[in-house]
Amino acid sequence: MRVVRIWQDEDVRYGLADESTVTLISDEPFAAWEAEGIVPLSKAQLLAPVIPTKIVCVGVNYRGHAAEMGHELPHEPVIFMKPPTAINGPQGEIRLPEGIEVVDYEAELAAVIGRRTHMVRPDEAVSHVLGFLCANDVTSRELQKRDGQWTRAKGFDTFCPVGPWVETDVDPMDLTIESLLNGEVKQSARTSDMIFNVYELVSFISGIMTLLPGDIVLTGTPQGVGPMKRGDVVEVRIEGIGSLVNRVV
Amino acid sequence: MRVVRIWQDEDVRYGLADESTVTLISDEPFAAWEAEGIVPLSKAQLLAPVIPTKIVCVGVNYRGHAAEMGHELPHEPVIFMKPPTAINGPQGEIRLPEGIEVVDYEAELAAVIGRRTHMVRPDEAVSHVLGFLCANDVTSRELQKRDGQWTRAKGFDTFCPVGPWVETDVDPMDLTIESLLNGEVKQSARTSDMIFNVYELVSFISGIMTLLPGDIVLTGTPQGVGPMKRGDVVEVRIEGIGSLVNRVV
Repeated sequence: MRVVRIWQDEDVRYGLADESTVTLISDEPFAAWEAEGIVPLSKAQLLAPVIPTKIVCVGVNYRGHAAEMGHELPHEPVIFMKPPTAINGPQGEIRLPEGIEVVDYEAELAAVIGRRTHMVRPDEAVSHVLGFLCANDVTSRELQKRDGQWTRAKGFDTFCPVGPWVETDVDPMDLTIESLLNGEVKQSARTSDMIFNVYELVSFISGIMTLLPGDIVLTGTPQGVGPMKRGDVVEVRIEGIGSLVNRVV
Repeated sequence: MRVVRIWQDEDVRYGLADESTVTLISDEPFAAWEAEGIVPLSKAQLLAPVIPTKIVCVGVNYRGHAAEMGHELPHEPVIFMKPPTAINGPQGEIRLPEGIEVVDYEAELAAVIGRRTHMVRPDEAVSHVLGFLCANDVTSRELQKRDGQWTRAKGFDTFCPVGPWVETDVDPMDLTIESLLNGEVKQSARTSDMIFNVYELVSFISGIMTLLPGDIVLTGTPQGVGPMKRGDVVEVRIEGIGSLVNRVV
């Protein structure tokens, strides 16, 4: 099932997409809902599929990326957050703030939390995840180094594109994940290269902070990160989920 | 004016407190509201006065604390975030997670945002702040050092007591700020010792991420931070605002 959020009749609506249509639903996908009509997918303006209260991210979490950055493999995840105002949707523009000419793309698999999640084990976490989406953890590498804390470098408005939908029927453990810059493949890895898998991460984070429906957990980026500048088009593509395309302006 | 949020008749209500009463209001304090009855303050159960979408915090921001930690004075603020699920109210219990026996108190002046705030100058920021409250940036110093990123060390549920209310009629520029542990004064400074004042901070942050009504900006802690353990009672007291008391359990 593909959960979408769309702009429809001057209103924001949740729906379920198939190859050609969106079935509008009466409530959030976390709640009980009824079908309320159908619109063509090709006419639907896709928005970020969820509005999180928290976006929790993980530092170095691919073996290949750890090697690329010269890091030792971590013994436990290092977490940080992006603000909810950083959320950006499919086809949304990544806006570079004044004074910043270059930012890096970071393709990431992200889990969307389906229900209140506090102190769950990894095997329990499976039933707390609604589904998965593609995310781009846009980062100013320069500010990341300068500040030490990563909040500013990764926290600008529009710096967290997510989408195109929440795919609820995919096993996240061994998927191809890629980023493409202006059509050229830049990152290409498999999620099985993660140091901590997605359910271990949800479990770890839920021991710190209670996760709520719609919250998003970004699971780290593989090797091959690099810069993008104004005018570039970046795509994050994950097998079994879909493709998230954004332009830098 | 003191904006409170209370538990009243099995419901959460906003109100305006004076010395002895709470006037219940019909909507959030950011919106247009009407008075809807009065209850005695002594009977009111005070909750965290706002529910933020973001809690944005600032690293070393008092000259005295910079000296204590051996830091040079920063050229620009270093920001980080606590998750909204860390919010705790007046008299709420600070719950130490399993395996953590000691956390530090950090008394802080905090600004509550009153309206959408994006790219404002410091002089404009004044009219974007609804008021001020006392905050305690509870921190596991051990995890802060171990992780590098501060999200885990400062992000546990209950690790952000705020209150007792939002004081809208106070000039934040030169107030006494204190913390007391079991009645003994541990931190005592003036907000005029800040490196970046509260409006400079709101301006700086608004150039990164859009701040929304109810969002909270913590402005850093003065010298004298130290440990607290289970059973301790911690108080943050700010001149012209009030006193925030919490027990560690």
